[in-house]
Amino acid sequence: MNLKQHIEVMLPEIEKELQGQVARLRADNTRPFHDMLTYHMGWTGEGAGREATGKRIRPLVVLLAAASVGDDWLPALPAAAAVELIHNFSLVHDDVQDNSEKRRGRPTVWAKWGVPMAINVGDAMFVIAYQSVMDLTRSYPAETAVRAASILHEACLDLTRGQYLDMHYEERHDLNLDDYWQMVGGKTSALLSACTHIGALLGNATEARQESYRQFGYRLGLAFQVQDDILGIWGDEALTGKSAASDLVEGKNSLPVLYALGKQGKFAERWKQGPIAADEVKAVAALLEEEGARAFAEEISEKETRTALELLQKAAPQGAAGESMLELANMLLKRNQ
Amino acid sequence: MNLKQHIEVMLPEIEKELQGQVARLRADNTRPFHDMLTYHMGWTGEGAGREATGKRIRPLVVLLAAASVGDDWLPALPAAAAVELIHNFSLVHDDVQDNSEKRRGRPTVWAKWGVPMAINVGDAMFVIAYQSVMDLTRSYPAETAVRAASILHEACLDLTRGQYLDMHYEERHDLNLDDYWQMVGGKTSALLSACTHIGALLGNATEARQESYRQFGYRLGLAFQVQDDILGIWGDEALTGKSAASDLVEGKNSLPVLYALGKQGKFAERWKQGPIAADEVKAVAALLEEEGARAFAEEISEKETRTALELLQKAAPQGAAGESMLELANMLLKRNQ
Repeated sequence: MNLKQHIEVMLPEIEKELQGQVARLRADNTRPFHDMLTYHMGWTGEGAGREATGKRIRPLVVLLAAASVGDDWLPALPAAAAVELIHNFSLVHDDVQDNSEKRRGRPTVWAKWGVPMAINVGDAMFVIAYQSVMDLTRSYPAETAVRAASILHEACLDLTRGQYLDMHYEERHDLNLDDYWQMVGGKTSALLSACTHIGALLGNATEARQESYRQFGYRLGLAFQVQDDILGIWGDEALTGKSAASDLVEGKNSLPVLYALGKQGKFAERWKQGPIAADEVKAVAALLEEEGARAFAEEISEKETRTALELLQKAAPQGAAGESMLELANMLLKRNQ
Repeated sequence: MNLKQHIEVMLPEIEKELQGQVARLRADNTRPFHDMLTYHMGWTGEGAGREATGKRIRPLVVLLAAASVGDDWLPALPAAAAVELIHNFSLVHDDVQDNSEKRRGRPTVWAKWGVPMAINVGDAMFVIAYQSVMDLTRSYPAETAVRAASILHEACLDLTRGQYLDMHYEERHDLNLDDYWQMVGGKTSALLSACTHIGALLGNATEARQESYRQFGYRLGLAFQVQDDILGIWGDEALTGKSAASDLVEGKNSLPVLYALGKQGKFAERWKQGPIAADEVKAVAALLEEEGARAFAEEISEKETRTALELLQKAAPQGAAGESMLELANMLLKRNQ
């Protein structure tokens, strides 16, 4: 069984579990509220379907981690649903915080129903995520559910810390690479490391092996984010599905940008003057490349990817699921095997 | 030991537990974020102190419930902290949703740090609440922590449903009493019933007795809300601490208002024409009273209070804590014993 086959088997089960969890909110008098959640999840409303759901990477990571330690992944489904719900809760609130009107080509929840409703939609999704974790007691001892919940809580707290830094950074012009790693650690790595950690826990791995899985998830997140930052400036629109260089227009504090700010050259000068217009993007991206930001980011990406894959090797994932986990990591890091 | 003495002993322990839980967020690089939470909790910043913390009614209810079943309330502290954090999470997000600039005489979190930060502050408080519940494993079996968490999750989901109805009602003019009870059931009763329910669980009550405690908390919430609605229109400012009749200016869908809307008389006509100005308040309150809204609300308040106290009797709280629980209920319902 390769990754594609794993995805084919796991994805329908993930969607079924997610739909069952979200259905908790269904009640006669609050039906439209429930429908706001199913809209965001990509199941209902205009544009619903595979394009709108996202790739469900995080629950796949949970299940592959569990299956690459133990053999069984079905009992881990409530945890898989939980991490995906946490991810989506954070997207709903993020879109409000970033004032983003579109997500996956569709109007965001706040754009459709207003900010107050969107806050409430995110809150409900957050609760349902924690309810899902408690559903691990369907197959595991209560101690395991408590442990999984604690791992997830810690990750969520890191997520809010990363979010705080991200918003706080918008007012600062003296950011360095330390600031970058702290923000990315919270915004991207915390939840991914919870995925691999919880998966290993549910596969009944030893503490030491759980720690390896956790570390792998963490570095996978860092490597993925650096890769994403490079593609956000120099990526091929056709491949990434988002308009290249949009990160520059949005003023995102990405790795190449923070590197170049440290150089205090022409780029830094331009950046401090305010938003980059769409017609400037090519020139500014070229400037960044001239000042060494692209080469630097690619070097870091290479290094982080190597570290992540070494940690995966150390975690020693077993069997077909282990191979699929490697395949998934390579896919996320845009590497050819 | 009477209520006053119980409060004197319990309150410092509640504050200590709360501060310990919120301290989880403390980290060198996100210190100002942590400080936003301690500000909202009333511990730091301008105006900090007893006036700013609120009365901590909900954690007191948890502890008194636990102590009136078993004898011990100290081990229940993490649950007491959890419900207070849930309450405060909902206040932070509520203030954004209602556009309220002041709470307990101080600027709200969003008014001080902006909406995006306030959303994040609420989210962090929400996570910490759930972490607190898991801390019940300090003294209880994991199964008990899972059960308490599930009770709290269900209450939080009801809270988001109540919040949805509240926001949704703003656009409607055809509300009836059913709509009112559904909203209040979610916004006020759900969390209070979780307090009495979890308290009884932690006191090791039988399932049947837990159910009596749960029902008592639920009706206590309804009775309290009706009482609050009456005071919000005809209350004595000096006693309630909020400007009387402010509910009319804010256009709140309170019980007297919904009753009078059903009468389709002069009040209903005026209400549909838009916001009530401050200088109209006296006349509109008098109109409401003429149309029987005050008498109706007082009758319902009397009935709900009676029901709540009957349920408390059925729950059979024991000892001094039991008497203090009755005293607290009477205090909340503004009754003389």
